[in-house]
Amino acid sequence: MIQQFWNTANQRDWDSFAALLHPSFHYRVPQTRECVNGRDHFVAFFRTWPGEWNVEITQLIADAHSAVSIIQFLSDEPAMTGISFFDFRDDLICGVTEYWPDPYEPPARATPYVERY
Amino acid sequence: MIQQFWNTANQRDWDSFAALLHPSFHYRVPQTRECVNGRDHFVAFFRTWPGEWNVEITQLIADAHSAVSIIQFLSDEPAMTGISFFDFRDDLICGVTEYWPDPYEPPARATPYVERY
Repeated sequence: MIQQFWNTANQRDWDSFAALLHPSFHYRVPQTRECVNGRDHFVAFFRTWPGEWNVEITQLIADAHSAVSIIQFLSDEPAMTGISFFDFRDDLICGVTEYWPDPYEPPARATPYVERY
Repeated sequence: MIQQFWNTANQRDWDSFAALLHPSFHYRVPQTRECVNGRDHFVAFFRTWPGEWNVEITQLIADAHSAVSIIQFLSDEPAMTGISFFDFRDDLICGVTEYWPDPYEPPARATPYVERY
């Protein structure tokens, strides 16, 4: 279901995308305290995302009630890492909570064991 | 096992903490491209973390091979959200890949449906 979520988004197949979502779907970005409430509003939010883009799933973990995907969001901008937590209701996706962790310069560390890769 | 990882860290019970980790344990922070290789180096990295701190688990998802926790890292600084992906080998934790997504100001959005909470 998570793979279908990203695949149908990549294909811009918004009818199939919407069919995965519960009518009371809600979307949250804790870093900005943004939210989108309702399936149709969320589909519009995704459908109108500007420019060319494509999503590649790099990791997927799921248990009976929740799931998380790590994606690379590829566009004209530098690739971004997205971490999306999915909630389910009635065999549909009823919520996504998403994080976009940016690169940053590390602080000084108390041990000499931290290397860079 | 993930709960024990954070509980023993909160208790500064470093022997019990180390007993959860595979000898070839590796730690990665993709945002800074930092890594710590080896169980003993990682325990030292954690053990020497400066100041008072305590971790609260807010979400946990696990399947047969991997797990993810979302934590609040509480200290004298503002609370930080940590997202930690765990890998397992021989019934021990053999790797943690960790993200620290900071708050940021949202860009303009193409739809009017994005609210703030």
